[in-house]
Amino acid sequence: MGTKGDNNKKQIIGIADNLFYEKGYEHTSFTDIADSAGIARGNFYYYFKTKDDILSAVLEKRRCDINQMLSNWEQEYPEARMRLKNYTLMLVKSQSNISSYGCPIGSLCLELNKLRHALQHDANSMFDLFQAWLVKQFSALGHEQDAVFLSMHLMGRCQGISVLASSSNNDDYLTREVELLQQWINEL
Amino acid sequence: MGTKGDNNKKQIIGIADNLFYEKGYEHTSFTDIADSAGIARGNFYYYFKTKDDILSAVLEKRRCDINQMLSNWEQEYPEARMRLKNYTLMLVKSQSNISSYGCPIGSLCLELNKLRHALQHDANSMFDLFQAWLVKQFSALGHEQDAVFLSMHLMGRCQGISVLASSSNNDDYLTREVELLQQWINEL
Repeated sequence: MGTKGDNNKKQIIGIADNLFYEKGYEHTSFTDIADSAGIARGNFYYYFKTKDDILSAVLEKRRCDINQMLSNWEQEYPEARMRLKNYTLMLVKSQSNISSYGCPIGSLCLELNKLRHALQHDANSMFDLFQAWLVKQFSALGHEQDAVFLSMHLMGRCQGISVLASSSNNDDYLTREVELLQQWINEL
Repeated sequence: MGTKGDNNKKQIIGIADNLFYEKGYEHTSFTDIADSAGIARGNFYYYFKTKDDILSAVLEKRRCDINQMLSNWEQEYPEARMRLKNYTLMLVKSQSNISSYGCPIGSLCLELNKLRHALQHDANSMFDLFQAWLVKQFSALGHEQDAVFLSMHLMGRCQGISVLASSSNNDDYLTREVELLQQWINEL
């Protein structure tokens, strides 16, 4: 497959990723994705045969993106405490999307888990990537023993903020909760 | 409508409520609900014409159930602190459902918000019922000024626990998080 084919494929995956996030996986049809991609149907089938194939590619892309982001953070922030704080800042940076659609990871996992989708574990494994990285940071701060629970605690807090921010009109809530988390990280 | 009709209607609402929770709203068809109810299609239409009509009735039932539960808790627990602790125990009591399907309120709101569903605000208002009740309890403990944020904090923490418990295989996580919340309530 040449460069044009690669670009088409990437474009389809990016469009599907957004649609799954904004509308939900079940509510996004194969046709919705093909139409949004603006690629003739016959060509489209060359890249993907089913919506599940697209989901699989979206999850692979998401895992790559997460790994890339985490490794960028390691470059950018030499200290574990700064890295943890930066993790919580994702919520602030994505506040407007979160207020509309919740967390892209949590909401997709919830949906696929209910569907008992064949790829539900692939989706849940996105949390594992964050957890492994968070465990390293908490360990670096001397919390080796509690690192798994601390990492799940932090991920859970962020998930809860995302759910409630998307169901509430209180704009201060997310900002204040992130401040609480930053304080919690400072005091560790 | 006689007693039999009322019972049929209640039965349909209960079945739809479960299906929406376990499979998701979008993935549950009108036909799924009619089939599960075991009521002849012609009769079924007598009660509900569309899936949205059923959702509206499910949300009304849920709000009634929440109000009833909160008023039962007020009877059962004379002290605000006990009431708040009892709120967190919902997670423990529903652990197996939460591990499979997340929180029935949070997951439905997330889905309907993404769908930009006409009833999304009716769904989000389930949180308002809890919030108003939690505000009363935090106020009774002398936290009038912070009561709104404390109530959102507590609801958010519980939402986060639900999302992560449903995406993780770590059974201790939920129990430990609820212990942390109880400790937090004790220290208020």
